Amino acid sequence: MASNFFGEIFRITTFGESHGPGVGVIIDGCPAGVEISIEEVESFLVLRRPGRTVYTSPRKEEDRVEILSGILAGRTTGAPIALFIRNSDVVSSPYAAIQGLCRPGHAQFTYWKKYGVFDERGGGRASARETAARVAAGAVAKKLLAMHSIDCLSFISAVGDIDLPLPELSSLVSLRKKIYEDPLFCPDEKISAAMRETIAKVREEQDSIGGIVTGVAHLPVGLGEPVYGKMEARLASAMLSLPASKGFEIGAGFQAARMKGSEHNDAFTADDSGAISTATNHAGGTLGGISTGSPLYFRVAFKPTSSIRKPQQTVTLQGKKALFQLPENARHDPCVAIRAVPIVEAMTALVLADLLLLSQSSKCPLLLGCT
Amino acid sequence: MASNFFGEIFRITTFGESHGPGVGVIIDGCPAGVEISIEEVESFLVLRRPGRTVYTSPRKEEDRVEILSGILAGRTTGAPIALFIRNSDVVSSPYAAIQGLCRPGHAQFTYWKKYGVFDERGGGRASARETAARVAAGAVAKKLLAMHSIDCLSFISAVGDIDLPLPELSSLVSLRKKIYEDPLFCPDEKISAAMRETIAKVREEQDSIGGIVTGVAHLPVGLGEPVYGKMEARLASAMLSLPASKGFEIGAGFQAARMKGSEHNDAFTADDSGAISTATNHAGGTLGGISTGSPLYFRVAFKPTSSIRKPQQTVTLQGKKALFQLPENARHDPCVAIRAVPIVEAMTALVLADLLLLSQSSKCPLLLGCT
Amino acid sequence: MASNFFGEIFRITTFGESHGPGVGVIIDGCPAGVEISIEEVESFLVLRRPGRTVYTSPRKEEDRVEILSGILAGRTTGAPIALFIRNSDVVSSPYAAIQGLCRPGHAQFTYWKKYGVFDERGGGRASARETAARVAAGAVAKKLLAMHSIDCLSFISAVGDIDLPLPELSSLVSLRKKIYEDPLFCPDEKISAAMRETIAKVREEQDSIGGIVTGVAHLPVGLGEPVYGKMEARLASAMLSLPASKGFEIGAGFQAARMKGSEHNDAFTADDSGAISTATNHAGGTLGGISTGSPLYFRVAFKPTSSIRKPQQTVTLQGKKALFQLPENARHDPCVAIRAVPIVEAMTALVLADLLLLSQSSKCPLLLGCT
Amino acid sequence: MASNFFGEIFRITTFGESHGPGVGVIIDGCPAGVEISIEEVESFLVLRRPGRTVYTSPRKEEDRVEILSGILAGRTTGAPIALFIRNSDVVSSPYAAIQGLCRPGHAQFTYWKKYGVFDERGGGRASARETAARVAAGAVAKKLLAMHSIDCLSFISAVGDIDLPLPELSSLVSLRKKIYEDPLFCPDEKISAAMRETIAKVREEQDSIGGIVTGVAHLPVGLGEPVYGKMEARLASAMLSLPASKGFEIGAGFQAARMKGSEHNDAFTADDSGAISTATNHAGGTLGGISTGSPLYFRVAFKPTSSIRKPQQTVTLQGKKALFQLPENARHDPCVAIRAVPIVEAMTALVLADLLLLSQSSKCPLLLGCT
Repeated sequence: MASNFFGEIFRITTFGESHGPGVGVIIDGCPAGVEISIEEVESFLVLRRPGRTVYTSPRKEEDRVEILSGILAGRTTGAPIALFIRNSDVVSSPYAAIQGLCRPGHAQFTYWKKYGVFDERGGGRASARETAARVAAGAVAKKLLAMHSIDCLSFISAVGDIDLPLPELSSLVSLRKKIYEDPLFCPDEKISAAMRETIAKVREEQDSIGGIVTGVAHLPVGLGEPVYGKMEARLASAMLSLPASKGFEIGAGFQAARMKGSEHNDAFTADDSGAISTATNHAGGTLGGISTGSPLYFRVAFKPTSSIRKPQQTVTLQGKKALFQLPENARHDPCVAIRAVPIVEAMTALVLADLLLLSQSSKCPLLLGCT
Repeated sequence: MASNFFGEIFRITTFGESHGPGVGVIIDGCPAGVEISIEEVESFLVLRRPGRTVYTSPRKEEDRVEILSGILAGRTTGAPIALFIRNSDVVSSPYAAIQGLCRPGHAQFTYWKKYGVFDERGGGRASARETAARVAAGAVAKKLLAMHSIDCLSFISAVGDIDLPLPELSSLVSLRKKIYEDPLFCPDEKISAAMRETIAKVREEQDSIGGIVTGVAHLPVGLGEPVYGKMEARLASAMLSLPASKGFEIGAGFQAARMKGSEHNDAFTADDSGAISTATNHAGGTLGGISTGSPLYFRVAFKPTSSIRKPQQTVTLQGKKALFQLPENARHDPCVAIRAVPIVEAMTALVLADLLLLSQSSKCPLLLGCT
Repeated sequence: MASNFFGEIFRITTFGESHGPGVGVIIDGCPAGVEISIEEVESFLVLRRPGRTVYTSPRKEEDRVEILSGILAGRTTGAPIALFIRNSDVVSSPYAAIQGLCRPGHAQFTYWKKYGVFDERGGGRASARETAARVAAGAVAKKLLAMHSIDCLSFISAVGDIDLPLPELSSLVSLRKKIYEDPLFCPDEKISAAMRETIAKVREEQDSIGGIVTGVAHLPVGLGEPVYGKMEARLASAMLSLPASKGFEIGAGFQAARMKGSEHNDAFTADDSGAISTATNHAGGTLGGISTGSPLYFRVAFKPTSSIRKPQQTVTLQGKKALFQLPENARHDPCVAIRAVPIVEAMTALVLADLLLLSQSSKCPLLLGCT
Repeated sequence: MASNFFGEIFRITTFGESHGPGVGVIIDGCPAGVEISIEEVESFLVLRRPGRTVYTSPRKEEDRVEILSGILAGRTTGAPIALFIRNSDVVSSPYAAIQGLCRPGHAQFTYWKKYGVFDERGGGRASARETAARVAAGAVAKKLLAMHSIDCLSFISAVGDIDLPLPELSSLVSLRKKIYEDPLFCPDEKISAAMRETIAKVREEQDSIGGIVTGVAHLPVGLGEPVYGKMEARLASAMLSLPASKGFEIGAGFQAARMKGSEHNDAFTADDSGAISTATNHAGGTLGGISTGSPLYFRVAFKPTSSIRKPQQTVTLQGKKALFQLPENARHDPCVAIRAVPIVEAMTALVLADLLLLSQSSKCPLLLGCT
């Protein structure tokens, strides 16, 4: 089965490899009339760019976006939107030294077993380079969502043992400001400093470290689908489709397993106008897969970067013992979770854009004023 | 969008409500030739039956399965398989007392906001009753998998603060024996006893408690799809589509966020025949969404049951303050995670059956001997 | 791939065989709030009932519909709607005589080659009995469409060499009256009489005859999708999925291949209010897959019924020569096109309901008043 | 709903407009190991190139294909294959004169009604330019099919009133030679000459003419899916998704409606080895949606090109009367059916490639030797 697409109505299909001509995305199903410019897409792409800070990989991807279709005079036309990002700064030579070796923690072994081939130069389709296409598509999704007053955001919430408590989610505008100004996308300066220290240490040790990214969104009540199409099921699928992700939890998440019902249940309250909301938000913004109107929040766990400079024991694809040592000039991130922040945001926007359009399609005719 | 189906090739569509005639499932895409009997389906359904032990809800569902199509002389024919389970023991009267009240932790509020209607008698589509259809379908999936030497299993791994360490996964046969003999589906007697104590205590307090379910599987190497179709993405979606689930993690999961690359990376080794495997299995059985051949394992967090006997503050659907008190004779589970065990197993089987058929479709013609 | 479903948002999945417990359908994606009763479904089902007249098969299917889910207090709830129609009057014994023989014109040979099994008693999934489930679902689709002022209708337009010219399509109400009163669903009494004569003759000859069904609809302008999702592509797929159908044409259809552009092009005109329409309607109601606002019309060709009483040469499934003679008491229609009339109508309604919901999902936010 | 994709496993998504940077296609789901070169894709694209003969439009599209992903060292890798064809020779100025006028026979009016925008310069997504992407994808599908000994082909079978009788289908190799050597893709020289005369005449009259394309294929028995996924349903959908197509028929098609069962039924016979086939092939190669092993054949009707030089009455988009006259230098084909020949072939290949992979996924485990 084709597995390079995501979404049902607002559907993206991505293509491209880390060491081919480039990566790209087709957005099929975006309504006409959404204002979007190359600059807006590129300014979102900058956030995931390795080389943005010393805390991420030094590869200097230019990430210039070419619009191949679907946008006319600054607005979407309803036609499929094709965005292409040419690869630059592609140095394949460092990979020659490790050709034929099983790379610990990498998809190379399993791809080779499944397909009988693997592009040894980079990570092929399994490379994080593919996520540039997701971010480009996410930029369009975010513009559509904004027209419907829906906003989403992500930030780093753990690096190794350094944890960030859940910040105040009532204003995404002020939260965004703090996050985008911080080199680690952390809304708390002090905690960011501690995280940077941890990263500096593992870098020195030629090692890497894992981390956690939190995603949040402000949504109207009633968005989402039931049963297999639950909002949290779509988000979980979106997040576990990211390279290096190992877990997803919404609201209290795994902590909910430790709680009693009387603690976890969010009591319903109402304001003077009769508008109903919940007093607490352990649920994380959904009940039964459909938004409650409280802020959505969830966490995504990322493993430490598999590519480390430390020598590691491995075998050749023929099963002979060998030492795996990353070439000097190969790129790698000490903490892949940081680069994942805008990618989590993009995937959140893609899930929400799809749910928004789905909810339009399932409107009760009586509520639409039909007879 | 239709959101009551799951899977791409081995695709189920479920229907039915907790207080209607019954629940059912259509399995579309199951190959011909799979041996299956009503008894096999019912014996799997028994596992999720509330009333099986005092630790789960006392509702006495008979769960007799009617085969409406797709099976002839004990074998699937390639036609869609329809299985129907009539509801019995449906007592709607207890729900009269709470009609019009927002039920804390329930999907009733969000369904009402989305659809403009909600079946007050039980949970409607949001009821755990829907999962009987998943389990029935899972029984068929398990039979198909067995023909390809694939096996999967689930067990309880936490109730409140009582945790079970990951057991030995080398023999699913012996593990299954222990699990199915235990009233909580826990493979460790002592830990099961401690869990039962916890449950007894919350029951006495008219409260409930959360828990964690672990899923495992034995698979060949190379099963799974890349990018958006990763095995872990499909499992995460399957598990977060379950009522009350709040989190999913594979392998080291959230713990991986605390680890260094040199710790987390599983070193590749080879046996004398040159067969490659990993020395450790922090990955949990996949790399890049495709199976490594090591056992698959993952964990699913369940919140405490929302329905508790303790009185709770709430509001009416019109926004007036009210006290919510579960009727005396309404059914509820003190720990929903226990009933979730066979359901997690069923969803795992459904994901794996779909991936098995998908992998057949994507076979390289060269490997098939084509020219 | 699962191939027993149809539609993207308003999606049906059918199940059941001609000689099993019954046939049924799950409608997934129907919005909440559509008024529908068992009587409405059954009164539509009556139209396809063999035995309605001497011109169709004498099998007395009762076609009592059981609602298994999705409807509460006479309205859809947004949950999947399951409708089940038990088989009655199932006589399998006549089929014993022809067991193991390749049935000319039947799917039995190809099913046997694909699946390795075939239910010899009736037509299994390939039986026209499956279409009862389509008609039941179509009844629901028609109610949804009516709430949006969309109407569709079908009639017989050829039996053998007897042709009906395209009738006036401006009022579907008066057209419906004529059609439903005629035993052949033909809106012209004289032509109906000639058709009946043709059928009587082939029946006497122990033979059968082909026919053509015309479908029409009144639609708003702008309904439909571009490129691969064109309205005519969906209709063509829907119609060629019917048993015995051999062709589909929209508007001038195959006759358009004989015409010049200056003849075929429909000139645009406008009324005093500036409302644009076309002076003629060779296009048949769509341009580029999207409705023009003129009546939709298309034709579907049906082959003569394969089951005839005349003896036919054939072979056994082992390749031995044999004579094929339909058992005396086996049911068969002399002209399957007549029974196809309400089925074409049902499939039209299913296509239009899906396109209606799709068009709601793709609304330009600017047109919705978003900023 | 996203409607720019086609296929379930071998799935294409196309993008691009006639007057933007170019058109392209992503092929998702093509197995690894298929040998394909740019030259092979381009040599198939040449066939649909306008300007190939005087009988088609003089636009000189270069149709140079750029491979953006999915092919390494001349073979597919299992990753999505992205092919891009830049537009050249794009002259938008001629369209200025007709801006704001409803173009008779064009999708411009309906697109404008649906989306609120229309790219006036060319046909946007509704342009036949989009079909270049289908042909490029079809070239890859044909290479996959060839590895499984499946072949398909198309030819012109009517231009206006000039008809070609169905040729001998036993050797596609010799048929292909004749077709590709003829300027109209007609396997009969004399009939081709008569067709050319017809075209010359309508060209002189500043008019256009319709035509019919026949598609054929050699297939193994048992390919296809039942019910809604029938081979003929997929082909019908594929063909009616083509610009200007108005009808589809398989085998005897609409003629079957005139026939008796005893004429139309194809008698089964067997050779000495017991291999079963049909003595005639009125069915056109399928029964119940699944291939019989006899040659597949079907016909597709195309309307006369909408763009003609003759002046035509129309209105402005505001509903004012106006005269529509195609600019002198605007391109147009006198007979669009001729250019459609390789496009029908490409769509056939895409349908068959998808069905091939689907049939691999639905293999009975018993037939695979599983226990």
